Amino acid sequence: MGTFRLRLAYDGTDFAGWQRQVAHRTVQAELEAALAPIEGGPVDVAAAGRTDAGVHAAGQVASTRLTAAIAPDTLRRALNASLPPDIRVLEVDAMPEGWHARFHARAKTYRYWIWNGRVASPFARRYAWHVPQPLDVASMAAAAPAAVGHHDFAAFKGQGSQARTTARTVMASSLTEQPVPPAWGDAAPGTRLLCYEVTGAGFLRYMVRGLAGTLVAIGRGRLDRDALGRIIASGNRALAGPTAPPEGLTLWQVTYGPSAGEAP
Amino acid sequence: MGTFRLRLAYDGTDFAGWQRQVAHRTVQAELEAALAPIEGGPVDVAAAGRTDAGVHAAGQVASTRLTAAIAPDTLRRALNASLPPDIRVLEVDAMPEGWHARFHARAKTYRYWIWNGRVASPFARRYAWHVPQPLDVASMAAAAPAAVGHHDFAAFKGQGSQARTTARTVMASSLTEQPVPPAWGDAAPGTRLLCYEVTGAGFLRYMVRGLAGTLVAIGRGRLDRDALGRIIASGNRALAGPTAPPEGLTLWQVTYGPSAGEAP
Repeated sequence: MGTFRLRLAYDGTDFAGWQRQVAHRTVQAELEAALAPIEGGPVDVAAAGRTDAGVHAAGQVASTRLTAAIAPDTLRRALNASLPPDIRVLEVDAMPEGWHARFHARAKTYRYWIWNGRVASPFARRYAWHVPQPLDVASMAAAAPAAVGHHDFAAFKGQGSQARTTARTVMASSLTEQPVPPAWGDAAPGTRLLCYEVTGAGFLRYMVRGLAGTLVAIGRGRLDRDALGRIIASGNRALAGPTAPPEGLTLWQVTYGPSAGEAP
Repeated sequence: MGTFRLRLAYDGTDFAGWQRQVAHRTVQAELEAALAPIEGGPVDVAAAGRTDAGVHAAGQVASTRLTAAIAPDTLRRALNASLPPDIRVLEVDAMPEGWHARFHARAKTYRYWIWNGRVASPFARRYAWHVPQPLDVASMAAAAPAAVGHHDFAAFKGQGSQARTTARTVMASSLTEQPVPPAWGDAAPGTRLLCYEVTGAGFLRYMVRGLAGTLVAIGRGRLDRDALGRIIASGNRALAGPTAPPEGLTLWQVTYGPSAGEAP
């Protein structure tokens, strides 16, 4: 018994997101269903970041409290034996009573992958946004750091957002070209894989996808390379680029401070 | 009109293999269905290697003959517009009359990916064989080159194989550890990605998967590191390791000689 930290990876393609919903397949519901027979009763699981439909996680962190007596590594094995293959529990640790994956998170890092080439990839299609138009990567890379700082991100707030305040702190924001993974095969000539990586203390819903969509608009020349700072300052959603599709987005990792309660 | 060379990539997960079959989804049938309206009639497509159910291709090569007048790049775009997203045409070239993807192929290279760690990956699960047991990679790497040469590969012939002769020439056979692709996320601690790459003038059905399964048996210590050469020499299928599952296998590239007719 006790409080557990679960580090999770999932392929979000076939999920309606993290959060439990009636009549939809969600990551939270699958985890809670896998935990219930271990606990012998209903279990609540909280995630550091509630990913949207189609969004992936390579390093999601979740917390749960069990009264059942079970060792962390046994819990990991038991969960992986019953979870579907598109969710895996990478690690389980025992945590101090009261530790919570979301409340104690200090920062989250997301990666947004862009497959830039005239032909999409059958291997990348689930995990990257295919942008067939030529992109000015130097302008995108120059623009990305404008998101760093404590800003009002009202221009990147998703429709229907319930957030009380739209001020958020972004610690890092960069766009780089990455080698095409060898396991993804030999791409069509001229193909590039771009990675937008952003770290923040918190994000508005659709904010990362709005930033990625705006960077692609800059890459296509529809916005100039100084546009990102201007759009943030304006607070005007209509000036930002379109929200990028979910398949390119992965919750990469969650960072906790040393005082937030590491495993005893 | 004329003879065309198509370079293709496909995710084999949801296909019953390359070859046309009644009531099954196959790559050949999808391609021929996409070509028929362009040609205005039935079209035959031949592949360099007829991949089995669940096997992928990053660089399959196919040939077809059309009477319809169409430029290679227009053909590529038209096919990608109508093909499902798990098949992409990477390149199309016009070839001399009579050029054939299989008959003129000089060599084929396959890669077999092994995800070696206690926890599978939601991102690698479609493209790599998950082997949770510890593997002695040094022994596997030492064993792999024993397949090189002109050998009778009867010990690696699949059941029900119709091949007239079981002699084949293997030009390269190596096993290496590869970095986990960044887009596949942060794996559980201790995870390794292994790649068995083999190049040959031709292969028996299930031969590459039999070689991969035998290398894993060596890695697990069930066979010693000299076993591969001994098993080939024996011609005895019962001595080889089990056939590795299809998801780990990708037809990587097909090589043609300079005299086999390049694009005019």
